[in-house]
Amino acid sequence: MHTLEQLYTNSLALLTDLYQLTMAYAYWKSGTDTKEAVFHLSFRENPYQGGFAVGCGLGHVVGVLTRFGFDASDLEYLSGLRGNDGERMFEDAFLDYLREARFACDVDAVPEGTVVFPHEPLVRVRGPILQCQILETVLLNILCFQTLIATKAARVCQSARGEAVLEFGLRRAQGFDGALAASRAAYVGGCAGTSNALAGKLFDIPVKGTHAHSWVLSFNDEMEAFDTYADAMPNNCLLLVDTFDSLNGVRKAVEVGRKLRERGHEMVGIRLDSGDLAFLSIEARRILDEAGFSDAVIVGSNDLDEHLIASLKEEGARINVWGVGTRLATAFDQPALGGVYKLSCVRSVDNGNEWINKVKLSEQAVKVSTPGILQTRRFRQGDRYVADAIYDENLSIADGCTIVDPMNMTRRKHIAAGTECQDLLVPVFRGGELVYDVPSVHAAKEKTQAELSCFHNSIKRRVNPHEYPVGLEARLHEMKTRLVLQARGDNGVAGR
Amino acid sequence: MHTLEQLYTNSLALLTDLYQLTMAYAYWKSGTDTKEAVFHLSFRENPYQGGFAVGCGLGHVVGVLTRFGFDASDLEYLSGLRGNDGERMFEDAFLDYLREARFACDVDAVPEGTVVFPHEPLVRVRGPILQCQILETVLLNILCFQTLIATKAARVCQSARGEAVLEFGLRRAQGFDGALAASRAAYVGGCAGTSNALAGKLFDIPVKGTHAHSWVLSFNDEMEAFDTYADAMPNNCLLLVDTFDSLNGVRKAVEVGRKLRERGHEMVGIRLDSGDLAFLSIEARRILDEAGFSDAVIVGSNDLDEHLIASLKEEGARINVWGVGTRLATAFDQPALGGVYKLSCVRSVDNGNEWINKVKLSEQAVKVSTPGILQTRRFRQGDRYVADAIYDENLSIADGCTIVDPMNMTRRKHIAAGTECQDLLVPVFRGGELVYDVPSVHAAKEKTQAELSCFHNSIKRRVNPHEYPVGLEARLHEMKTRLVLQARGDNGVAGR
Repeated sequence: MHTLEQLYTNSLALLTDLYQLTMAYAYWKSGTDTKEAVFHLSFRENPYQGGFAVGCGLGHVVGVLTRFGFDASDLEYLSGLRGNDGERMFEDAFLDYLREARFACDVDAVPEGTVVFPHEPLVRVRGPILQCQILETVLLNILCFQTLIATKAARVCQSARGEAVLEFGLRRAQGFDGALAASRAAYVGGCAGTSNALAGKLFDIPVKGTHAHSWVLSFNDEMEAFDTYADAMPNNCLLLVDTFDSLNGVRKAVEVGRKLRERGHEMVGIRLDSGDLAFLSIEARRILDEAGFSDAVIVGSNDLDEHLIASLKEEGARINVWGVGTRLATAFDQPALGGVYKLSCVRSVDNGNEWINKVKLSEQAVKVSTPGILQTRRFRQGDRYVADAIYDENLSIADGCTIVDPMNMTRRKHIAAGTECQDLLVPVFRGGELVYDVPSVHAAKEKTQAELSCFHNSIKRRVNPHEYPVGLEARLHEMKTRLVLQARGDNGVAGR
Repeated sequence: MHTLEQLYTNSLALLTDLYQLTMAYAYWKSGTDTKEAVFHLSFRENPYQGGFAVGCGLGHVVGVLTRFGFDASDLEYLSGLRGNDGERMFEDAFLDYLREARFACDVDAVPEGTVVFPHEPLVRVRGPILQCQILETVLLNILCFQTLIATKAARVCQSARGEAVLEFGLRRAQGFDGALAASRAAYVGGCAGTSNALAGKLFDIPVKGTHAHSWVLSFNDEMEAFDTYADAMPNNCLLLVDTFDSLNGVRKAVEVGRKLRERGHEMVGIRLDSGDLAFLSIEARRILDEAGFSDAVIVGSNDLDEHLIASLKEEGARINVWGVGTRLATAFDQPALGGVYKLSCVRSVDNGNEWINKVKLSEQAVKVSTPGILQTRRFRQGDRYVADAIYDENLSIADGCTIVDPMNMTRRKHIAAGTECQDLLVPVFRGGELVYDVPSVHAAKEKTQAELSCFHNSIKRRVNPHEYPVGLEARLHEMKTRLVLQARGDNGVAGR
C-alpha cells in the first residue's frame, strides 16, 4: 500500500509557510516553545452553496505526521536564509533544536468519509505550541483540498442517481498531486474509478479508459481505427464515436460489435464526448438496442458536473456511465475550501498550568474563532441524524443539552436526555505516537455512503439545501460570548 | 538545483490516463506503434477573459521527459490490470516492450516566460506515435496549470503597478505541488516571492513571512506578543496588527518600533489581514509617518486578486506589499486552462512515408484542430510585437505573408516583406536527447517582463482587452479548410 507522501523523495518538513518557522524560532528564542496549546481545523461554509461536506485527507495527514522531522538539506536551506539586514534569520542552536525535534502532539480527527459541517473541528491538535503551529499549513493543504473534492464527488454521484461516475481530471488538474489527491478524494466521495493510472497504482482505486480521438485520426478512416482497436482489445472494447459524426460513429461501432460477436467477444460500449449528450445518447441507445446491443454501455463526458448531469437526466439522457473531469478534479465552481486552523486555548507552568481559552476577534461573526478543547457530538433518532453539538471537553456536555447556532444566538435547539449519540473526533496520535489504524479508501468510500444515507434528503439537496442543525453547547456558547465581550472591551487578549 | 519531479521517489510513467496505455497497447498489438506522428499542445481561449497568457512549465516537462521510462513496480501494476472479462489487459510481451522503451521523440517548445495566445503551440512533439500519445496527459497537466498561474501572477502584478506581490497560497492550494508548482509559476509570472518554504528550497525563490494571529493569542496581551516577537526577530520584525483592532495594533507596533530603534534596530513594518484595507492602510500610513516610521512597509492581504488590488489602488490604499494567496494559487476565477493536445499529421512506410495531415472535426470552430507541422512566427516593428503567424513547416512561410483569423476567415492581415520576426518554438529534445539548456526561474521571470513590455497596453488590459492579431498563414488556412470540407463530405478521416 502506497500513500501520496511516500511518492516524495525529500522531506516535507518545509512544506509550510515561512511564518510558521519564524514563529517557531521566536517561540524557541523566548522560551515559550513548550507552552501547551490546542488548535482546531475547521471551515466556515459548506462548499458549492451546498448543505454538507465530506471530510477527507486524514490518510495523507497520518503519512505526513509519521514522517515529521527536518532533514539535513532542510536545515542547510534554513541556515542560508537571511533577514532584511542581511544577517542569518535562524541561529545554529535553533537548527540543532529542529534537528532533534520529535513529534509529541495529540491529534484527534474525524475519520475519512464522515459528513461534516461548518465550525466543526476536522482535526484537533494538542501539544507543544511550536509543534502545533508548524503543522498548520500542511494540515490545511491536505484537508481543505481533499474535503473539497470528496464533497464535489458526493454531489456529482448524487446527481448520477446510482450510475457510475468516473473521474477523468488528471490532464487539467492543478499539478501532479492536485490530480492524485483529487482521484483519491473523488473515490472516497463516491466515484467508481479514475482514468489516472498512477492513482490506481498508489491508492488501489479502479482505473478505466479506452481510446482518444487521436487513435481514430491516426488511421485512414474511422472504420479501420475501430476494427484495429477491437482486434487489439476484443474484451475491453469501448469505442469513442464522435471524432467526425457521433451517430455515424455509433453505427460503425455496431458493425464492430457484430464482428466481435462472431469471434465470441462482446463489445463493452461507446463513448460520447461532444455535442448534445441528451439527444445523442437517446439516439445511440435506440441504434444499439435495435441492433441487439442492449447491454452495451454509453459513457458520456464533456465538461460535466452535478448540475449538467441533473439537467441531462431530466431530459431523459440514456447515459450509463458519467466521465467527469476538470469540474470535479479542480472543484471548478469553488476551487478552494476556506479552511482555518485556530488556536483555542493555552496553558503553561507560568500561568499555573490552567487552561486559558482564546478567541480571535473579527467584525464578521463567522470569523470569530471558538475557544476551548472542542469535540462534536452527533445525535441520532433511529437511522436519522438530527443535530450536532460542538462542546468543550473541559466544560463537558450533559445528557440532554441545548445547542446555540454560532451565527444566530436566538436559534436554539434542545436535545432530549437519552438521545443516541456519538463523538466525531477519534484519537489518531497520542504523544506523537500513531494510535489509529487508517481505514482503506474502500472503507472510507463505504463510510461516506453510509453517513450520507443517515441525513434527510433536504440536507443533500443540490440547490438551496436545508441547514442541518449544528450549534455550540450552551455553556460553550456562554463562555465564548463572555470572552468576545471581554476582548472587545479592553482590546487585549481574552482569557477567562 | 532541484526540480519538482525530483521530489518524487517513484516513477511518474503512470501519471497518465489509462487510455494512453490501452492505445499504446493497441498500437503495439497492431504493429502501428512506430508510425511517425506530430502532436501540438495549445489552448483555446486566454484565461480570465484576458488578452494574453504567459507560457510556463517547460522546466518541469524537461525533468519528466529526461526520466521517461517504466520501472518494475509500474510494470507489475500494469500486469495485474484486468479487462471486463477478468482477463489480463496487457500481455507480457507488451510489458517487456515498455520496459525496453527509450525516449525517441523530437520536442520543440516555447521558452518559459514567452507570451502566448490561443491556437499557438506551446509544445510540439514528433516521433513514434505510441510515445507521442503516452505523453499527452502529463504535458497537459504541467503546462496548463503553470501557464494558468503564471498568467494570473502577471495580471496581479500589473494591478500592483510595480509594487511587490508575494504568493501566500500554500494552505489552500490543490495538493502539495498544486502549491509548489503554483509558487514557481507565480514567480515566473512576476511575483517577488512566496511564503512556501519548500518552494524556496527547491526552486531558489525568495521566501517571506512573519507571524500569525495565533502568535498574538498565545500571549497574555498583544503588547507582550509584539515585544516578544521583536526581541526574537529584531531585524525581521513585521507585525500583524489586526488580531483585535487594527489601528490600535498599529499604535502598539509604533511603540515596539521605538524600543527597537533604541537598541539599534529598525522595524520592517506591519501587516493588515482583514477589514477595509483602503481605509486602514491610509490611517496606518498616517500613524506610522507621524511617529517617524515612514520607511516601515504596510503589507496587505485577505482574498486579494487583480481586481481587488486595482480597486484598492483607485481608493488610494497605502499598501506597499501585496500578499495574494488562494485566488492566485488556485486561479480562483478560472481554475483550469482548457489545454488540448492534438494529432496533426502522421506518416508511415505503408503510406509511402509521406505526411498525411489530420483534422478533428467539431460543430464549434474553436474545437476544430489545426493540421500540419506547426510553428509560430512573431513579427515586430521596433520594440513592439504586431502579429503572430501560425504556419506549417512543410508549406513553409514567405517573407511577406497574409494571416487569417482561425475563428473568422474574413479577418485577415498582411505582413509586409522584411518585417523583423522570430519563431517561438525552440528545439528541446532531438531523437530523445535533451538539446536545450533550461533557463533558471530568474531568467524566465525576466523574460516574462521583457516580453510583456513589447505588447501594447490594450492587449494587457485587465478587463475587455484588445485582441492581439494571431492567424493561420494563408496556405495553412487553405489546407485546413480543404481538409475540413473533405472530412465533412465523407464523414471519414481527412487526409490530403
